[in-house]
Amino acid sequence: MTRDDCHALDVKDHLAGLRDQFVISPGQIYLDGNSLGMLPRATAARLQHVVATEWGQDLIQSWNKAGWFIKPGDVGDKIARLIGAGRGEVVAADSTSINLFKTLSVAIDLVKQDQTSRHTILSERDNFPTDLYIAASLARQHGFELRLVDHDEIAGALNDKVAVLMLTHVNYRTGRMHDMAALTAAAHAAGALALWDLAHSAGAVPVDLTSSDADFAIGCGYKYLNGGPGAPAFLWLHPRHATRMDRIGMWQPLAGWMGHAAPFEFTADYRPAAGVTRFACGTPSVLALAALECGLDTVLAAEQFGGMVALRAKSLALTDLFIELVESRCGQHGLALQTPREPAARGSQVSFSLGEGGYAIIQALIARGVIGDFREPGLLRFGFTPLYLRYVDVWDAVAHLVDVLDSGAWLQAAFQQRAAVT
Amino acid sequence: MTRDDCHALDVKDHLAGLRDQFVISPGQIYLDGNSLGMLPRATAARLQHVVATEWGQDLIQSWNKAGWFIKPGDVGDKIARLIGAGRGEVVAADSTSINLFKTLSVAIDLVKQDQTSRHTILSERDNFPTDLYIAASLARQHGFELRLVDHDEIAGALNDKVAVLMLTHVNYRTGRMHDMAALTAAAHAAGALALWDLAHSAGAVPVDLTSSDADFAIGCGYKYLNGGPGAPAFLWLHPRHATRMDRIGMWQPLAGWMGHAAPFEFTADYRPAAGVTRFACGTPSVLALAALECGLDTVLAAEQFGGMVALRAKSLALTDLFIELVESRCGQHGLALQTPREPAARGSQVSFSLGEGGYAIIQALIARGVIGDFREPGLLRFGFTPLYLRYVDVWDAVAHLVDVLDSGAWLQAAFQQRAAVT
Repeated sequence: MTRDDCHALDVKDHLAGLRDQFVISPGQIYLDGNSLGMLPRATAARLQHVVATEWGQDLIQSWNKAGWFIKPGDVGDKIARLIGAGRGEVVAADSTSINLFKTLSVAIDLVKQDQTSRHTILSERDNFPTDLYIAASLARQHGFELRLVDHDEIAGALNDKVAVLMLTHVNYRTGRMHDMAALTAAAHAAGALALWDLAHSAGAVPVDLTSSDADFAIGCGYKYLNGGPGAPAFLWLHPRHATRMDRIGMWQPLAGWMGHAAPFEFTADYRPAAGVTRFACGTPSVLALAALECGLDTVLAAEQFGGMVALRAKSLALTDLFIELVESRCGQHGLALQTPREPAARGSQVSFSLGEGGYAIIQALIARGVIGDFREPGLLRFGFTPLYLRYVDVWDAVAHLVDVLDSGAWLQAAFQQRAAVT
Repeated sequence: MTRDDCHALDVKDHLAGLRDQFVISPGQIYLDGNSLGMLPRATAARLQHVVATEWGQDLIQSWNKAGWFIKPGDVGDKIARLIGAGRGEVVAADSTSINLFKTLSVAIDLVKQDQTSRHTILSERDNFPTDLYIAASLARQHGFELRLVDHDEIAGALNDKVAVLMLTHVNYRTGRMHDMAALTAAAHAAGALALWDLAHSAGAVPVDLTSSDADFAIGCGYKYLNGGPGAPAFLWLHPRHATRMDRIGMWQPLAGWMGHAAPFEFTADYRPAAGVTRFACGTPSVLALAALECGLDTVLAAEQFGGMVALRAKSLALTDLFIELVESRCGQHGLALQTPREPAARGSQVSFSLGEGGYAIIQALIARGVIGDFREPGLLRFGFTPLYLRYVDVWDAVAHLVDVLDSGAWLQAAFQQRAAVT
């Protein structure tokens, strides 16, 4: 494999044109779309329109005229197409943490309705911390136990005490991906509900919530959906639960006016809206939703080229190539692959661990325009967004990594960093 | 009083220049800043910078380089100057509804800590609905009672069952304003905590949370703070409660990673940050915070001319003038003032009720460029933001109202509307 071979792969890549949707600085190789997606070209102009015309000129009339009120549902419908959900089943709102609070709380309430003695929230020790914090808070509130186990212990820990299995589909550190359908089936077989955090999978890997028969899902708008820093998150629940909530008039805890059946009747009594709409809470940020919609459009633009299936094929090809090149060219430096080699168990990122100096290496790469990131302890993390990455980018990123490692410049940087601290 | 007299008042108004901070269409008279503040001139360029440079170019580095991480506190510090709070006591985050959930939940937990038998949340029947919905949700969760009384019954309803008095300082419909210091003192005398929603008072009237000895406060960023549609809200608690929470390690329920003591250690265990910072939850919208900061700057620009005291004096002069002109010139049409005449009991808006046709009158005014709004049942609501309104605007708005009422054009519009519905 040579750089020319990579270039040849780009030439025949039918997704290559999607890169033109983004603002990319010359020489920049961005391997951190799993932290913050790149800026779509359309976003600046869209925001200018929302600011100057919808807000500046039309003011409050835009709640109806520009459809501000229905944006959370409209944007939710676009997200639904990426995660195997139906129209009207997803709402874009609030943050991932807050949406987890809503859905996990409702999941617990549903289990309580069934008057079981289940009182365990089961999750993975290496789950993203905010998910564990929110779950711990709800466990305290409900007198439940939050039980954390390692990845390989999950299926075995599903017993008749488990109320909810709460997992992040793709691990933020290692990129390891769970089998959503199999674990959901195992949870159901054990009598538990399954709640999935799609932060690192929506827009990154094909997700089919419906065919996986999941119960609840939440996710993030600012990673692979390119919605901008702190973009609104999203929330889905299976229609069977929405229907049950409708039937018994169940509330979600953050019962704000945007989730009311008729917010503009301004009644003193809360009456939940039907379906997923009850999971809206306060007034949504119109600016943030507009940017999220632009980000979503960049992913949906792939639909004409095969959609998530085609993006997934390219993502796997990019991560395979990266693993192969790093291992063949940097082998002597002690980088240890932390991401599964099996495609079915891998998200759209690759992580390597290194005993020491990882932070300095990432800093040296950033100085060369190759943006990855470092996660304690000792993890070099590289995200691959097939919408805007080329095969030559993978080649060039590895070439930079080889230079940094071989030159020892990172050692000097690590030394300077240590000197600055002490 | 003539239009020339109004013009003379504008000429000698030392706050008049603050109007230039806003984008105002020719002929537009905007009397709805209590619903959505006008667009500051600085916002578009600031958002372009955040989008193109901070996000588009610097990407994830902006979390540190551009201070994205500390924006919720920095913006909170700017809000603190408007509401009589100290530096480091306010955080800008989430929505008003969500911030109410956090603070009211903590207030209830603090009362429970004291092992009292208090289990009533006392509020006003005419409070803004989302506040009542959130309080009702927490009352269900905690086995508390939400007791709603009329404005004049509040002080009398403060008894030894009341855990928290939860009020909105300025009523969204009538503009009636509570005496925050007196009611807080009454609540404390009865052994209850006092929680204030400042949605219609922050940036509209002087607020001094510290000297009022309030316990908790929340508020809205998109009304008088001009932060844009659905701007982040804010949250304050008295330092005595922050200190107590620190001492006993108390959580707020929405225990997300941004409220962790060290979010980037990525530990599985939640450890709340000190002070108000623990009330942050998920990743904040950077775009929305940037717009909010521009809005705040327009209010803080008044500090050199006397700040909130000077803005309040102008606000009262504008609302006095509006009331006087409407009553003297439209008296025969049956408009009944719903806003207190006493300055101390009035926020920065004026509302009139009318038996029928109110909606059509507001629509007719909007068609003429005079933007007010209509609230069921039968309320014509006009907000006065002294930052961008002139005395001649008040004169002209009333002149349009007189024309609309006298011409009967609104009757025709009301007829057409009814015909369209039936």
